Amino acid sequence: MLEILKRDGLARTCRFETAHGVLETPALLPVINPRNITIEPRELRERFGFQALITNSYIIRNHDELRERALKQGLHAMLDFDGIVMTDSGTFQSHMYGEVEVRNEDIVAFQRDIGTDIGTVLDIFTEPDWGLERTREAVRVTLERTEQAAALKQDMKLAGVVQGSIFPELRTECARALSALPVDVFPIGGVVPLMETYRFADLVDVIVASKKGLAPDRPVHLFGAGHPMVFALAILLGCDMFDSASYAKFARDGRMMFPEGTKHLADMRGLDCECPACRDHTLESLNALPEEERSKVLAAHNLFVSQREIKVAKHAMLEGELWELVERRCRAHPALIDALRRLKEHRDFLERYEPLSRDGAFFYTGPESMWRPAAHRYQKRYFERYQQPSNKVCVAFDEGERPYGRVYAGTMAEISKVADAHFMVMSPFGPVPIELDEMYPLAQSVFPKAMDLETQARSKELMERFSHGQEYGICLLYDGQQTIDTLATLDGSPSSFDIDLARVKAVADYQFGKGAATLLLDGKVGLVKSKNNDRIRNVLVDGEHILSMRAPDGFFTLRPAGARRLRKGFPSPRLRVIVHVDSVEFNRAGKNVFCQFVQDCDPDLVPMDEVMVVDEEDELVAIGRALLVKEEMCALRKGLAVKVREGVGV
Amino acid sequence: MLEILKRDGLARTCRFETAHGVLETPALLPVINPRNITIEPRELRERFGFQALITNSYIIRNHDELRERALKQGLHAMLDFDGIVMTDSGTFQSHMYGEVEVRNEDIVAFQRDIGTDIGTVLDIFTEPDWGLERTREAVRVTLERTEQAAALKQDMKLAGVVQGSIFPELRTECARALSALPVDVFPIGGVVPLMETYRFADLVDVIVASKKGLAPDRPVHLFGAGHPMVFALAILLGCDMFDSASYAKFARDGRMMFPEGTKHLADMRGLDCECPACRDHTLESLNALPEEERSKVLAAHNLFVSQREIKVAKHAMLEGELWELVERRCRAHPALIDALRRLKEHRDFLERYEPLSRDGAFFYTGPESMWRPAAHRYQKRYFERYQQPSNKVCVAFDEGERPYGRVYAGTMAEISKVADAHFMVMSPFGPVPIELDEMYPLAQSVFPKAMDLETQARSKELMERFSHGQEYGICLLYDGQQTIDTLATLDGSPSSFDIDLARVKAVADYQFGKGAATLLLDGKVGLVKSKNNDRIRNVLVDGEHILSMRAPDGFFTLRPAGARRLRKGFPSPRLRVIVHVDSVEFNRAGKNVFCQFVQDCDPDLVPMDEVMVVDEEDELVAIGRALLVKEEMCALRKGLAVKVREGVGV
Repeated sequence: MLEILKRDGLARTCRFETAHGVLETPALLPVINPRNITIEPRELRERFGFQALITNSYIIRNHDELRERALKQGLHAMLDFDGIVMTDSGTFQSHMYGEVEVRNEDIVAFQRDIGTDIGTVLDIFTEPDWGLERTREAVRVTLERTEQAAALKQDMKLAGVVQGSIFPELRTECARALSALPVDVFPIGGVVPLMETYRFADLVDVIVASKKGLAPDRPVHLFGAGHPMVFALAILLGCDMFDSASYAKFARDGRMMFPEGTKHLADMRGLDCECPACRDHTLESLNALPEEERSKVLAAHNLFVSQREIKVAKHAMLEGELWELVERRCRAHPALIDALRRLKEHRDFLERYEPLSRDGAFFYTGPESMWRPAAHRYQKRYFERYQQPSNKVCVAFDEGERPYGRVYAGTMAEISKVADAHFMVMSPFGPVPIELDEMYPLAQSVFPKAMDLETQARSKELMERFSHGQEYGICLLYDGQQTIDTLATLDGSPSSFDIDLARVKAVADYQFGKGAATLLLDGKVGLVKSKNNDRIRNVLVDGEHILSMRAPDGFFTLRPAGARRLRKGFPSPRLRVIVHVDSVEFNRAGKNVFCQFVQDCDPDLVPMDEVMVVDEEDELVAIGRALLVKEEMCALRKGLAVKVREGVGV
Repeated sequence: MLEILKRDGLARTCRFETAHGVLETPALLPVINPRNITIEPRELRERFGFQALITNSYIIRNHDELRERALKQGLHAMLDFDGIVMTDSGTFQSHMYGEVEVRNEDIVAFQRDIGTDIGTVLDIFTEPDWGLERTREAVRVTLERTEQAAALKQDMKLAGVVQGSIFPELRTECARALSALPVDVFPIGGVVPLMETYRFADLVDVIVASKKGLAPDRPVHLFGAGHPMVFALAILLGCDMFDSASYAKFARDGRMMFPEGTKHLADMRGLDCECPACRDHTLESLNALPEEERSKVLAAHNLFVSQREIKVAKHAMLEGELWELVERRCRAHPALIDALRRLKEHRDFLERYEPLSRDGAFFYTGPESMWRPAAHRYQKRYFERYQQPSNKVCVAFDEGERPYGRVYAGTMAEISKVADAHFMVMSPFGPVPIELDEMYPLAQSVFPKAMDLETQARSKELMERFSHGQEYGICLLYDGQQTIDTLATLDGSPSSFDIDLARVKAVADYQFGKGAATLLLDGKVGLVKSKNNDRIRNVLVDGEHILSMRAPDGFFTLRPAGARRLRKGFPSPRLRVIVHVDSVEFNRAGKNVFCQFVQDCDPDLVPMDEVMVVDEEDELVAIGRALLVKEEMCALRKGLAVKVREGVGV
């Protein structure tokens, strides 16, 4: 059973229960070759703290002594490891050597009989150079075998592998079919050749295509991914588990892994690693070790560094900085930059999981940043949901940027005198109306002054889309924010209250959907503002407190009176999470909504959205923030779905 | 006395001798506030391994007890530190509090009297908001005081500070004037306000302007730079020393420094640091410490991380990967990206120190990579030195790129039949003739397949410059290298020997200057090729071995017969290092050239250039590789100038 603890987009940290304890993800499972052990399983647990490892049932079964011991003592005792053990089935051997001499039912039954925690189907390794038909047939056989394995698994958890090579449709289909089977873990298989040849952009396509079809209630394992240079990226795309045989292979070869890539000892001019394996070594002392011993130190280094990178990515996710980390990590190799640029093609899919806002600010790291789902979300909603209060628009450009498009007027002071003129600022996100300028990610973003040409061109493209059929004026800002702040004081510009009201309307439509402002603000509107910074705090309509504005991200929290207005105007299930009758009183008391009680919900909800918790009669029960999207809420049987802020009485 | 051990561009690792031992640079000097010591000097030496620290003579002098102890026991005994001690003079206090009550001659004499190793002038801290005239006057006074201090210093080494705020001409002038004085260390001062406000692009301008005027024989100290996020960049620009008071200040504030920026404990969701201070802590255990103790752990963390970053940058420099490191580091903050983009403006200056080639390959990390001096060098020399063997040119584009410019012909097969057609490939470096395609950085470079728009535009611009007045054909490559390799086998294309000869000519002119090929190849040319890979190994003319081609970087090493031809054709000092008569026999015996014996040399030499070592009569003495540029060879009194490969008898 999987529980999502925290998430950022597709990335997540989960608890996955097994017979030998709970696996906390993202997690790395070191590979143990039972015939050639580099680091003992007990040491992996005690020195490194690994909760789980992976070994190969095919090798054990083919080795008389190991087979007998595994069957007699059980796998855990044989390995002297009391954590979680996952086993592979021989599929990788078929990739390496062309064929294996074992039947699916036999290897699955064997894995079950030796007491593995997570056993794997003997799937067909789909090679990247295969044609569509051969691959399709391999997927068919893989699914057939998975069904067969599911019938045999009993108490063992079963890993059912997504195959389909570089054909996205096959990957998605395979993933969908697997999701319908009683499979417990979803490895994405057949990706080692892509990683070995640095085809990281293709790897991105494969992961995304698989994720599109996979049910969110089981962990996703990127099979054979053991290099720290890909972990952050794979975690961003929703991979939960990794396994590494490379730590030992690379070590035997004198190669050290780093998140920045691989370094061969012979090419290094100094050692600056602080991992527990390296910290007492210099490059000289490492080189002076006998080969076997050095290889052990390097294997430990490779594991420590890999393990640490998983932690770094997890912390970045929790701190809202995973995108920045991934973009930095992808500078390690041009092939990873290709992978980063490939994410652009998947922006619609990524945007569905993009939170409304996050704690960390949006830091630009390069032209690729502007294709992040946070930027894509803004552009989408701006064009879909934003309504300009006036036809006459004044567009202000930050210092350094050049105006483009038709220009009809002069200085800002002059333009500001145009009756009902409305102000926009050009930004790397596109046109930003001044009413939206406190909202995530617009206000919570940091850019260089000297922008790359690609971002400039993108900004221009958005400006042209905005300006299509529009009449607008141009002025140059010499200090963006400051000048905008003084606008309200210029003659002929709208009053402070009008600007505030425009902000409330624009943010409400942006956050809750087109028409929300009309529903919410029907009546006499009053605003409570902060005495410290003059920013909007509360919105009242006809004396009722309907919304509060959050200072950190510029969005609203919903109050019961506001929720009632939205519920009345928007048909179910919009903005709703519908809970089972058993949960209703619990939630009315202000307690959180758990996944197992969610009956249905708005398919357009994004994480961190304000939602109405309603019962099956559409009666308001509570208000809170959605933590998951619909597929997740409906698929998961454990964990929080909505963090309730306030229960609502009858 | 300074000795350059290794270098890459302006970056260098040096040995600097003082009365309390040798300082190896790049080095960080932790700041000790004598009235409020966070980490004891002895601990800085024993636990952290710091060779040097910096403290403030003004504070000591103003404190009765400290002053008396310092004068009586000496500074080293007072601090209980037997390493190198540098002292500041009160200038920073004048920046902080507006004024200080001490005269330059008094504070300099005081520093001398308490036995500091490196004392500092009481310079005027030029503030970034000052106008030109006020700054100019401050520079004048600073120089006057430096002269006064130099007369007082006796055995003390004197730090003479470069001031001039953000006026590049003033910085360069000040630096030139200081270089003419008996000053031993060059701090670049007045930069703290730039760093505090993240004006890193201005910091780049200041460092470059200072380096332009500073003699290369003394260490450069970036005064007040104590954050690991700027170290790699500053080292790239030739800074040798740093000092950090921030480690303690940040720690008191709950802030942890990382090369990726500063993190406040309160914002962190986990600790993944492996530095000696953190390795036994979790975020929870850190937060649970009493404030004072936590602040000590954080201070130690900040120092360890800073110290490690210096090591990381040093190793990257030695491995030829400093540019890649700096470009990755600058993704830590958009203001650092501005700094990175500012380097473009200094490409001519940087190119003068750019080595002919380096061990590591050229890895693209973003559009900024294409302004590295290695790319600039290629473009410059391509347009200045390369002569096309034919007027009819066929330009091949890599898959994915679109052709631009005038197109006169169709497929590659058709174009290849055009008599005397000549082939070029379009690359992110610009047009690459096929004869130059094994040369650094062209062959030793790795790019993503999906190129950013800025690099595409740059490539197009170079193509247009190339195509000006040219007639050329276009074809598309579907696998760059492979197709080029098959060209030689097509009908009507030049013979293999002709292509090889064209390569020898083109590389010779590129490497040694226009006209070199004519001088070198006058006679009957023979080529010895590798049996393994068919690449050129040796070039013989009239039976004499004149050049060997190096496989790793595609450049030539010079043989005596080749050197004689160049010496005859090129007037002195071209391609020469002229040595003192005392060195001649030594170098003839194959021993290296030391700086103190260099009389003069070619001002256009770049590091790693092949050079002729000649005596004052222009007789050939040896052949080798230049390690330094002219200013360095002539200014330094210690260390290697030329790595001699072969002495030449009379």
